[in-house]
Amino acid sequence: MPETCNIVSLVDEIENPGEIPTDIKTLGEANITSPFIKKDYSCFVSDDDRVLLLASAKSAERLRDNLPSFELAGPRNQIYFDPSKTKCAIVTCGGLCPGINDVIRSIVMTLFYGYGIHTVFGIRYGLRGFIADYGLPVVELTPQTVDRIHEYGGTVLGSSRGPQPTGKIVDALEKMNVSILFTIGGDGTFKASAKIAEEIDKRGRKIAVIAIPKTIDNDIFLVSKTFGFDTAVQMACEAIKCAHTEALGAPNCIGLVKLMGRYAGFIAAAATIALREVNYCLIPESDFDLEGEKGLLKHLEGRLENRGHAVIVVAEGAGQKYFEDQPKEKDLSGNVKLGDIGKFLKQKIQEHFKTAEKEVYIRYIDPSYIIRSVPSNVDDSLYCGNLGQNAVHAAMAGKTDMMVSLWNDRYVHIPLRSAIMHRKRVKLNSRFWMSVLESTGQPSLKN
Amino acid sequence: MPETCNIVSLVDEIENPGEIPTDIKTLGEANITSPFIKKDYSCFVSDDDRVLLLASAKSAERLRDNLPSFELAGPRNQIYFDPSKTKCAIVTCGGLCPGINDVIRSIVMTLFYGYGIHTVFGIRYGLRGFIADYGLPVVELTPQTVDRIHEYGGTVLGSSRGPQPTGKIVDALEKMNVSILFTIGGDGTFKASAKIAEEIDKRGRKIAVIAIPKTIDNDIFLVSKTFGFDTAVQMACEAIKCAHTEALGAPNCIGLVKLMGRYAGFIAAAATIALREVNYCLIPESDFDLEGEKGLLKHLEGRLENRGHAVIVVAEGAGQKYFEDQPKEKDLSGNVKLGDIGKFLKQKIQEHFKTAEKEVYIRYIDPSYIIRSVPSNVDDSLYCGNLGQNAVHAAMAGKTDMMVSLWNDRYVHIPLRSAIMHRKRVKLNSRFWMSVLESTGQPSLKN
Amino acid sequence: MPETCNIVSLVDEIENPGEIPTDIKTLGEANITSPFIKKDYSCFVSDDDRVLLLASAKSAERLRDNLPSFELAGPRNQIYFDPSKTKCAIVTCGGLCPGINDVIRSIVMTLFYGYGIHTVFGIRYGLRGFIADYGLPVVELTPQTVDRIHEYGGTVLGSSRGPQPTGKIVDALEKMNVSILFTIGGDGTFKASAKIAEEIDKRGRKIAVIAIPKTIDNDIFLVSKTFGFDTAVQMACEAIKCAHTEALGAPNCIGLVKLMGRYAGFIAAAATIALREVNYCLIPESDFDLEGEKGLLKHLEGRLENRGHAVIVVAEGAGQKYFEDQPKEKDLSGNVKLGDIGKFLKQKIQEHFKTAEKEVYIRYIDPSYIIRSVPSNVDDSLYCGNLGQNAVHAAMAGKTDMMVSLWNDRYVHIPLRSAIMHRKRVKLNSRFWMSVLESTGQPSLKN
Amino acid sequence: MPETCNIVSLVDEIENPGEIPTDIKTLGEANITSPFIKKDYSCFVSDDDRVLLLASAKSAERLRDNLPSFELAGPRNQIYFDPSKTKCAIVTCGGLCPGINDVIRSIVMTLFYGYGIHTVFGIRYGLRGFIADYGLPVVELTPQTVDRIHEYGGTVLGSSRGPQPTGKIVDALEKMNVSILFTIGGDGTFKASAKIAEEIDKRGRKIAVIAIPKTIDNDIFLVSKTFGFDTAVQMACEAIKCAHTEALGAPNCIGLVKLMGRYAGFIAAAATIALREVNYCLIPESDFDLEGEKGLLKHLEGRLENRGHAVIVVAEGAGQKYFEDQPKEKDLSGNVKLGDIGKFLKQKIQEHFKTAEKEVYIRYIDPSYIIRSVPSNVDDSLYCGNLGQNAVHAAMAGKTDMMVSLWNDRYVHIPLRSAIMHRKRVKLNSRFWMSVLESTGQPSLKN
Repeated sequence: MPETCNIVSLVDEIENPGEIPTDIKTLGEANITSPFIKKDYSCFVSDDDRVLLLASAKSAERLRDNLPSFELAGPRNQIYFDPSKTKCAIVTCGGLCPGINDVIRSIVMTLFYGYGIHTVFGIRYGLRGFIADYGLPVVELTPQTVDRIHEYGGTVLGSSRGPQPTGKIVDALEKMNVSILFTIGGDGTFKASAKIAEEIDKRGRKIAVIAIPKTIDNDIFLVSKTFGFDTAVQMACEAIKCAHTEALGAPNCIGLVKLMGRYAGFIAAAATIALREVNYCLIPESDFDLEGEKGLLKHLEGRLENRGHAVIVVAEGAGQKYFEDQPKEKDLSGNVKLGDIGKFLKQKIQEHFKTAEKEVYIRYIDPSYIIRSVPSNVDDSLYCGNLGQNAVHAAMAGKTDMMVSLWNDRYVHIPLRSAIMHRKRVKLNSRFWMSVLESTGQPSLKN
Repeated sequence: MPETCNIVSLVDEIENPGEIPTDIKTLGEANITSPFIKKDYSCFVSDDDRVLLLASAKSAERLRDNLPSFELAGPRNQIYFDPSKTKCAIVTCGGLCPGINDVIRSIVMTLFYGYGIHTVFGIRYGLRGFIADYGLPVVELTPQTVDRIHEYGGTVLGSSRGPQPTGKIVDALEKMNVSILFTIGGDGTFKASAKIAEEIDKRGRKIAVIAIPKTIDNDIFLVSKTFGFDTAVQMACEAIKCAHTEALGAPNCIGLVKLMGRYAGFIAAAATIALREVNYCLIPESDFDLEGEKGLLKHLEGRLENRGHAVIVVAEGAGQKYFEDQPKEKDLSGNVKLGDIGKFLKQKIQEHFKTAEKEVYIRYIDPSYIIRSVPSNVDDSLYCGNLGQNAVHAAMAGKTDMMVSLWNDRYVHIPLRSAIMHRKRVKLNSRFWMSVLESTGQPSLKN
Repeated sequence: MPETCNIVSLVDEIENPGEIPTDIKTLGEANITSPFIKKDYSCFVSDDDRVLLLASAKSAERLRDNLPSFELAGPRNQIYFDPSKTKCAIVTCGGLCPGINDVIRSIVMTLFYGYGIHTVFGIRYGLRGFIADYGLPVVELTPQTVDRIHEYGGTVLGSSRGPQPTGKIVDALEKMNVSILFTIGGDGTFKASAKIAEEIDKRGRKIAVIAIPKTIDNDIFLVSKTFGFDTAVQMACEAIKCAHTEALGAPNCIGLVKLMGRYAGFIAAAATIALREVNYCLIPESDFDLEGEKGLLKHLEGRLENRGHAVIVVAEGAGQKYFEDQPKEKDLSGNVKLGDIGKFLKQKIQEHFKTAEKEVYIRYIDPSYIIRSVPSNVDDSLYCGNLGQNAVHAAMAGKTDMMVSLWNDRYVHIPLRSAIMHRKRVKLNSRFWMSVLESTGQPSLKN
Repeated sequence: MPETCNIVSLVDEIENPGEIPTDIKTLGEANITSPFIKKDYSCFVSDDDRVLLLASAKSAERLRDNLPSFELAGPRNQIYFDPSKTKCAIVTCGGLCPGINDVIRSIVMTLFYGYGIHTVFGIRYGLRGFIADYGLPVVELTPQTVDRIHEYGGTVLGSSRGPQPTGKIVDALEKMNVSILFTIGGDGTFKASAKIAEEIDKRGRKIAVIAIPKTIDNDIFLVSKTFGFDTAVQMACEAIKCAHTEALGAPNCIGLVKLMGRYAGFIAAAATIALREVNYCLIPESDFDLEGEKGLLKHLEGRLENRGHAVIVVAEGAGQKYFEDQPKEKDLSGNVKLGDIGKFLKQKIQEHFKTAEKEVYIRYIDPSYIIRSVPSNVDDSLYCGNLGQNAVHAAMAGKTDMMVSLWNDRYVHIPLRSAIMHRKRVKLNSRFWMSVLESTGQPSLKN
């Protein structure tokens, strides 16, 4: 049985574990005693504490002399930066995601109360905030200013897409005398962060760059589940429930919901499993045909005849083969603009049933940003708080060029170059996708 | 000062009160002692109990010898129908609305426990359900089957749009031996209900027709506030909050939300007042220009320069002058299909700022059906329960050709011919619309 | 039929309407042109616009030559205070209630943007904040500081109970040069406000005192529904749902919920009607016996035998006859401390079934402050916004010694001396209480 | 550094991993081809697929020749039971927990649609339902009857506490011809289930017994996080938010919240971390003193002086040393009835400040059952669905005497005898508890 079939949760087993770099770069020797938790309690973590990349017994046996593992995250009792001289900066990049403010708040609070660091700069509107030409002022983040920001969606710093010149960013860091840069973003931000760390190294500076992975699509490699994903699924479920209600409310009615998911259908799939009232779940990873004997339209026709209603959930990146001949535009992040599969499906279904001379009603719901702009739910709040704390601990210990991640139920340090090796996808032979198929009862939809 | 300016809540003062019919038709003398509440308590209402159409002192003075008033709703101690021989039917028509199931449940429960009536037919998919050709089975509604339906959105009976032949509907009522028909719907349903009552009268039958007003747009004349409206506003607020969060999350960003409201902008206006984070509220009743010195685009440009973000809420029926030359399609209810003002605005704004060579981001949110498919909130539940109870009391007393309404904070009986005299609109010189303008700070937007 | 039976909503008809003072005191002639809404639109209200106290046709006929009415609230085109010289103060008294922050925000925003008044003092911790001995600093309220406070429960100003010396309060107002005092509170606050207005008058000062009625119990005379009540009922419903779930989850199980309601059972009654899953609703207005043939315990025993579960809702002020011999303590507001009817009932039920040798489980839920400390829901937000606006308009016009109220669906001015004439109660012969009895099916529970 | 310090999430590392049995009993050879998912896709799991007990690299090294691991859960391609002849039973025991209905629904749906098993008996009111003396009818569970039960809290089967005679239970299973018994419960249920499996074995019967771990307190050994815990924490947060609002609303005010947690303070601790507005978190695992220099009262006094308010969260099992001399009663499950630490604390705080002649207000909130009776949130729904599916797969493969668990982010089979070896507790030297201390800033509170 292939190892890739062992996946029972959202955690993917890795195909070539041996090839993944696991060493974390440090800026130098950590020889300052940590002021963190001066009380009777103390619970420091050492660099020797590591978490296995793979938790399957087979992998452990196969790789037994060279078991890949990641550094465990957490506070070190020896730190690299002198708190009294350390200034930090936080930047948020890319699209919104529930919990960004929680992460910002947690970083500021941990720096202030855990390490006594009082200067934290908030960079406005993503990497742009480093570039003088934009004229964006830096804001000071204090426990007072961030106290209640976790109750709001979005990011108090603002965000933007796209790269900015690495040299100018490092210039800005030097000018501000920043020792630690926290970047909150996805794939593109990891690449930018890695370049910044490289440039810092070239210049012989001692500035730590720590990334906190953020993507609403949950598609970052080596992260079990990205923050905000839970909340997004919850909101997606609300939209699907409405589509179901609509589908039941009129004769021959189809509730059609478009959800986020450019390359990975995790939101659509997880919402389908959680709600269990979806009949077709279409995601980018699973090709499907519209026409033909086994195509969606034919199957849908049968379902309407038998049941009188249907609920379809489609991730925005699904069915892009139908837009192959349209001109490719790109957004600032370099993402190709997708064809609007939601409206396309709506139109195709209408045409099909018109041709078949059958009455059909379609209730199309595109919750769009509603899914990502809400405040984090309790799970995500808890998670974001932990990510922020661990990012601070890593930075204070002098780690750099890495991201904080949750892996095998533990917080770990992962090199940025490993994080950008792949993009996480829904594996079609995983238990996760099987659960979707069990729930929907949909066939392959392929001729 | 014009009387029309006195409006401080959603209740409109009436312009020609004297012309509104207020007499309720009855099928005959109510001479059966009501079984309703056999206990020590009893609180019957008499037909002499009436509620003033206008509650202003000026009106009272002006019309003092002929003060128009409506019959107070509530249980009568003498009823017309013998419970042991009475069968009822319920039909739900038109679009969904939070609370329909609450109304159905309340009617069934009151008939059963209040009057001992055990046969209530649910007609499936609106007026279609009466027409044999559609082959739709009738369902029996009992306290057991409706016990928890109020926890769901939509209608358990299903709905449909458009008229059906009145004769066939009355044929069906006769065949089923139905004595009372409850219709839950809007303007079109009132007209159909009035025709049904007329046909019944022609045939000399004794079947009561009682309407319960339903419209998500809150645009029914002589109803203070339609059920489901509260819930819809609540959901609209959720969408606007997200748009606001998005607008704050990127540089020069506009959150644009399209809301329901074909001819009346009550949802958009009420959400604007409740949330107080909208900068432009565009509704069908208030004409606005896009171009020109005082137009929206110019003003928006100024706002972005000063504040860096903006939130626009537009009701679907606003700005239809921009679609005048497009062909007019109609839906089954005879409503003209509206031009998509949301997408149009998005495109126009994008073009404007592209021409002006200014960066702008637009986050477009169209919550569509999400606003109307959710379960009712507590307020609407309470309201729907009362509407259902009062509809039953009216019917049992032999009233017909009328709707149950909330007016001047009391439940009343209103003739259907009065209910369809006008459509309720947001009055631009009302305190209600003034509150919107206070909240947004928007100017007239007219050149 | 008694007039008191006409009540179909939460609005009570009044027993002796002729005795209620309706004249509003003013500080002097309003002869300054209002800066409020300088735009094309304008919608001013005149003092001649009045709203009938009673909207029933019978009352109108009976009192036709002397129809009592209240001044309509809203902006006047001539105002009394010169905005450039006017300072205001806001104080919040008594227990928390959802929406207090909405009212504060609305007052500050309307003063600032509607009238150009920039100095608004927030008095901390109720009337104490006026008394120097407590050393409580005054806070300045600006659009910036109040911008998002409506998203939180409670009051940003803090509150306290109990009276303070009127003279010292007026001293403080004079020292601060305050022209308008807004008091947010209930019965006790009205009395204090009236005394303050009297003292101001004695001293020949021109300071307006405007009250905004606040009580979670909805028991203020001449107010249709107090703000926060909707939200409280919603929260109460959540608690009752849990009790119902628990009652269904174990054999012979009783869900028992205690709710707020010292003298008036509106919350318990409204939640009972809205949810329709309560079997016994016990309120202060309706006496009941525990023991005896017709007592609660006997009836409950029957219900458990037949149905296996039950849900009881009890308002905290119900059944106080069982505590008559306990010593009477008072809180700071002078309210007698109530006997804990919830725990008492729990114990009595347990004893009864133990004696009867029948197994019974009781799940006791006392949500206590959860019901009143949450943020306001959308309905209450909208309502609070309107109350705040109208309070400002009244004050600017030089009105004093009055409260703003919603009556017959319109905002009106009501003299404080009228507001404190009675306390609103659930009338046992009203349609409102009948709805409770219809929903629960409970008998009189009196031997 | 001790291994026990490595805990970064709710998953505990195990102290004596070698002593934990990991072998799963089976009823016999699985040699029937599974009908599960007959489509193109297939994703079967083999018994050789195992998940490491410990995911730390150190453990892997130390135990390298004998790495303990659990069987991976999931569908096997060879099954033991012939679906056409298999009847199943489900029983729910102990207290309510969000998600029980989700688990029931998932089991029924997977049996029906995945394996074609159409007879599933629901046992009413826990183990009692097996005992004829109680006269409780068995209910048939079908896809229709369970379709929407996941939308409600509680258990549609009802539950009860305490053991029943094992022999009689097995008699009942035999009489009903049941091949698979699913038990949903906690520690006590595991013990009962193990005894049932033993008795079945003695009698030479082939009946699988599969447990699904349920406890609101999250205190089951070898389960990362029990279902319903997320939802409970969410509800706990709502209560704490109210306490915080109250604490801010009056001078010198303390919000005091009592939460579930008999032996383990996970709910209190997780809510504290998620919300970050708690000042003292008291749990059973962490002893504290009230009196004395370092005691809670003294520290609280200091906090009130400095900040004017405080929020205390106490788990019901905390501070039981203060009730040592009270008589020990036990409930049906054999749990000792706890002293009411919430009321005790309230009283002690009041006394302390009265003695100190300092004004203090206490707002005491005990949400009690509200926390556990609500429907599951989306996270728990997803989790419960997976637990139910995997329980069915395990049973069909002939596994018995085991529970389904989530461990190291994967679903696994764990022998019941291992599950009851210990109870999970909050470890005071874990990162989890450290996060609580970071968040509250509370000292040890021990003299």
